[in-house]
Order: sequence, then structure tokens, then C-alpha cells
Amino acid sequence: VLDKGAGVREIEDLLANAGNFIDLVKIGWGISYVDATAKARVALYQSAGAQVSTGGTLLEIVVAQDRLDAFRRWATELGVDAVEVSDGLAALPPGRKTELVAELSRDFVVLAEVGAKDEDAPVSADAWVREMNADLEAGAQWVIAEGRESGTVGLYDDGGRVRDSLVDALVTALPTDRIIFEAPRKSQQAWFIRRLGSDVNLGNIAPDDVLPLETLRLGLRADTATIHVGTGAR
Amino acid sequence: VLDKGAGVREIEDLLANAGNFIDLVKIGWGISYVDATAKARVALYQSAGAQVSTGGTLLEIVVAQDRLDAFRRWATELGVDAVEVSDGLAALPPGRKTELVAELSRDFVVLAEVGAKDEDAPVSADAWVREMNADLEAGAQWVIAEGRESGTVGLYDDGGRVRDSLVDALVTALPTDRIIFEAPRKSQQAWFIRRLGSDVNLGNIAPDDVLPLETLRLGLRADTATIHVGTGAR
Amino acid sequence: VLDKGAGVREIEDLLANAGNFIDLVKIGWGISYVDATAKARVALYQSAGAQVSTGGTLLEIVVAQDRLDAFRRWATELGVDAVEVSDGLAALPPGRKTELVAELSRDFVVLAEVGAKDEDAPVSADAWVREMNADLEAGAQWVIAEGRESGTVGLYDDGGRVRDSLVDALVTALPTDRIIFEAPRKSQQAWFIRRLGSDVNLGNIAPDDVLPLETLRLGLRADTATIHVGTGAR
Repeated sequence: VLDKGAGVREIEDLLANAGNFIDLVKIGWGISYVDATAKARVALYQSAGAQVSTGGTLLEIVVAQDRLDAFRRWATELGVDAVEVSDGLAALPPGRKTELVAELSRDFVVLAEVGAKDEDAPVSADAWVREMNADLEAGAQWVIAEGRESGTVGLYDDGGRVRDSLVDALVTALPTDRIIFEAPRKSQQAWFIRRLGSDVNLGNIAPDDVLPLETLRLGLRADTATIHVGTGAR
Repeated sequence: VLDKGAGVREIEDLLANAGNFIDLVKIGWGISYVDATAKARVALYQSAGAQVSTGGTLLEIVVAQDRLDAFRRWATELGVDAVEVSDGLAALPPGRKTELVAELSRDFVVLAEVGAKDEDAPVSADAWVREMNADLEAGAQWVIAEGRESGTVGLYDDGGRVRDSLVDALVTALPTDRIIFEAPRKSQQAWFIRRLGSDVNLGNIAPDDVLPLETLRLGLRADTATIHVGTGAR
Repeated sequence: VLDKGAGVREIEDLLANAGNFIDLVKIGWGISYVDATAKARVALYQSAGAQVSTGGTLLEIVVAQDRLDAFRRWATELGVDAVEVSDGLAALPPGRKTELVAELSRDFVVLAEVGAKDEDAPVSADAWVREMNADLEAGAQWVIAEGRESGTVGLYDDGGRVRDSLVDALVTALPTDRIIFEAPRKSQQAWFIRRLGSDVNLGNIAPDDVLPLETLRLGLRADTATIHVGTGAR
């Protein structure tokens, strides 16, 4: 689930409705740094059994400012289980991301994201596979395939359509259960469920979409329902 | 109102703000089946005077699995007033939908929906009129004209524009107050209000749009305001 | 912030998370007139230090119905700090808007909006500058540059792109800190922050976007981050 500043009562509502369906919450980019209730919200998610992660852009800025030790203390104080390591701004020197995954996985669950935030950045399946393999070897628990909150970069073209040959390359070369596919739109979620099965790991799910996504997984919505069409009149 | 998994406190907020404007809440497709607080939420809406319905896709799957009796018990236990009977997946044999309307209207208010979920399905005004008439004769309280949550099928083309000749055919052949027009977008709501008057039955309204819709009905938003433009400077 | 009918608990959540970042809340168009909890919500925002304003369309209708005195009493009873004076429906006779700004600024903070609600209305930078200057001279505290909730009129073309020469003309001719730019979309908010700095006044911000906007202002999101791209591998 992508949390971009949900309120405490909103989260209590969400957990009561759908807490069983949430494994991992990412507090997006720098939201956890400006949100006055972030610490309480992290604890609330954890009380329902979900792990909580910081967002990748925040760490990229931390690294650019050479403040990794301060980040580590801040994240520990915040109480998150996980941190995301990414290079969405393409500002890290070669090898630095792998080092960060290794360093941070000593203290945190590490989610390593692959893909640029820029819509115009080229997307190479070979480069993604290489980077994801390096991240997993360096200690990442999961790798995240970039889609942003918009669903228009990385895994998707600028119209939101899935780059299916990219997905095929990833699931051929890597263990699918270690990949989280960012899939903010219903059409994208339905695509992954039809293609990779109902247990596929999906990310950047809006809080309001947790129950709708569960119905997609169960085939209880038209987009993934598998009723055999027999002698229907139309 | 279309509820796709609203929280208890969110609903309390909504009812305090706008409870007077809500006649009927549909808990969409299979949401009520996966939502841990569904029963409490049904009771909450009813305490404010709204009727509550299940969604049509759920019943279509029930019928495909031949579990109608179990559905009936489940819906009774859930406490809903109404059930939606639809054939959005186009999987029912001829005549089966009419039978379901007749059977279920002995125990529940029946909302009978007309129209396919598939964007590519042909839309015939004659077929809609025939099916709606059959549904009303079989005992449906209201018929629902399909628009989905997206506003891009049935009543609308894939760009969300109203198929006005379809609407004209429906309101010519049927009592308008027995039709609920699914109209999730503001532009669609404004169109129906301008064309059919401020009391037109509109469906698939998001909880956050209940008050905005009321302002459209009252002419308190630019899209439906009817100030005479006189000697304005521009 | 644009409030289009937020619930009391939703507002409490928002103020706990992000109250420090909210200066002014506009209850949009006629929402405050139909919302059963409007008075409580106005007081709640004010308790967190935010000023609250009515929407412009409501006042336009009041003026068309010649009920300005009743409006004044109603707004006083509601407890708002501010009222918006606009001519989005282009129905006011020449000079009337300036008179309204002057009259109402004796009792309320006045926000004077410039720009039509109609997507097809011509947009003239010269006319906007003249009208904004007249509004400020007549006593408006701020002038608002129209963008609507959609971000597709006034400041923007129908695809949501900023009319940059219009913005340049406004900030050249007027004090930038007296202008509120309606900017409902992330791309529009990022554009203004990059062009006019992190303290630019932005309006029509959805409650859920208050924290995300703050991260844009601070450069903690990819869209406005200013990391120097050095020897990055990609």
C-alpha cells in the first residue's frame, strides 16, 4: 500500500475493513519526514501485522547530502521495519546503490527499487534484470519494479499500458515472489493478476483500493471474473 | 452512492454531512463479501434512512456457481434491503435474468441492471428498452442503466460522452423515475440534470461527490447554474 | 485548500497530519450552503489557525438573486473569515465586481478571483492584470487566478498545461505574494514551485494533497528534487 499522508482515523478504518490484506505499507517519498503523526501511524500499521517502509526518494536525497548516519537514526526512531533504496533520480555513482542495499540490510528490511522516475528515461529489460539480481544478492528482501503513483513510467508507457516484454523478461530471469510490481491503476492490477496469478505482489496500491484489489484477486469483479460464457443471450 | 469499501468513520462523516441526500447505497460488485466490517456498515447506512444493496457481479458469480440459496442466506444475514440483478458478464442463458428478478423480488428490493461491463459490447437502445421493461414487469423496483465506476461503457462512449439517443429512447419508453442512471463523472451528472431535471435518479456516485452533486442539482455550481447572462463585461 | 465537503473526522485527521501547512481553506462554490456540518467545520479549521472562505459561485448567484444582505448575515452566522468575489459565470454588469470587493471588504477578508469557468472563454493577460489591479485597489487581500478543480481553464489549457506567458504577465505586473494560483494537479504545483519558488501561493489543493505538496515545496519528491546529477550510471 502506498500511504501519501493518510490520517490516523482513516488508517483505523482501513485496518478494520481490510487489515488482513495488507503486508507492507510504503510511506511515499518524503511524506514521513513532514507528517506530524508519522510515528503513530507507523505503529498503527504494525499493530495490524503490516511492515512499514520509508520511500526511496527521501534516501536518495539523504545520500546526495551525505547524511546517511542521521537517516539511520531518524528511521530507527520513527520505528519503520524497512527502507527503500532506489536511484529514481539517476544521481548515484556506479556501484553505490548496491553498497547501500548491503549496508542498510544489516539494520532494516531493504526494498530495492529499479527504474527511473523520468518518463523519458530509456527502459532496458537487460539492465533491470542485472540491477535486480545485484540488489537481491546484496541483501534486498524484495525488488520493486517502478511504476510511480501515476502508472506511466518504468513498467508502463506514458499511456499506462504494460510493457509486457519487460515483465516477461523479469519473471523469466528472477524469482517472481521477490518482485513487487508497482500497479496503481485497476487495469494494471487486473493485467498482472491475469498474467501472473492472484498472488502476484503488487505495490503502490492506494488505501481506498485495497478492498477493490482483493476482489480482483478473487475474481469478484468483472475485470478478472472467469465465468465460462455459455449460452448467454448477448 | 457507490461504496467500494468506505470505513465506518468515513461513513459517519458522510452521513453527518450529507445523509439527507442519500437514498440508496450500493456496495459495489464483490466488496461486501471481502470487507470485514460490511455488516456494521450496512446497519450504519440504514440508521440514516438509506437502503443498501449488494452489487451485481457478485450475484452473477453466485448464479454461475449455482449457489443462489447460500447467497440468499448470506444477504439476509448481512442485512441488506436490496440486491442487484445484472448480466454484465453476458453469461446468463436467455430468460434467466428475468427469472432471477422475479425470484429475488419476493425477499428483497431488486435493482435490475442493464448493459455489459465490456467496453466493446454493442449497445442497442431497443434491446435495453425490452430488457428494462421485462425487469420492471418481473418485479424490479428500479432498473439501472450501466455506466460502471469509470463512466466509459453503456450510457457513455469510451471517452465518457453520453450516448444521448440511447437516453432519449429510455426516457421515452419507460417511466424515468424507475431508471437509475449511473453517472460517476461531474460532466455526466451535470448533463443528466440539465436534460432530465434536478430530481433525476443518478447512481455510482462516489461518497465524496454526494455534496458536490447536491450543489449541481440546486444550480449552485457553474456547471448547472442558470443565471441569466445579461450585461456582463466579458 | 479546497474543501468540497470533507467530514469532521477527516478534517481532524488532516489537521493532525498537516495543520501547520494550511493557511486558508475555501469551501468550494455552494458546498457550505448544503453541508449540515459546515459551521462546525469552519470552527475546526480556525482552531488550527487557518482562515476559511466561502466559494465564489455562491456569491455570484446571491448577487443575481439580489440577496446580498441575506448572504452577509448567513456568512457571519457561519463564522467564515473570508468571502470570495468572482465573476466566473460572466454575469455581472461592468464595475459591479469592484463594488462588491469594496463593500464586502468592510466585513470580511476578500479573495477576488479572476477568470471564467467556461473552457471556451478567451483568456487575455492584459484583462487579467487590469482586473486584478482593480480588485487589489478595491480592498481584496488576495487575487485568485482561476484554474478550477479540474486544472483545465484559466491558467491552463484544456490539457492542463500552464499558460506560461499569462503567468509571466501576472507576476511582472502584480505583487506575486498577493496572487493565489489555483493548481490542483501535481504537475501544475511542481511547475509553479520550479518557476516562482517554494513559497508561491497555491490554491485548490485537495485535502489529500497537502502533505504531498509540502514535499514538493521542500524538494523531497522527484518532480522538484534538485540533486545534482553527477556520475550516475544511467
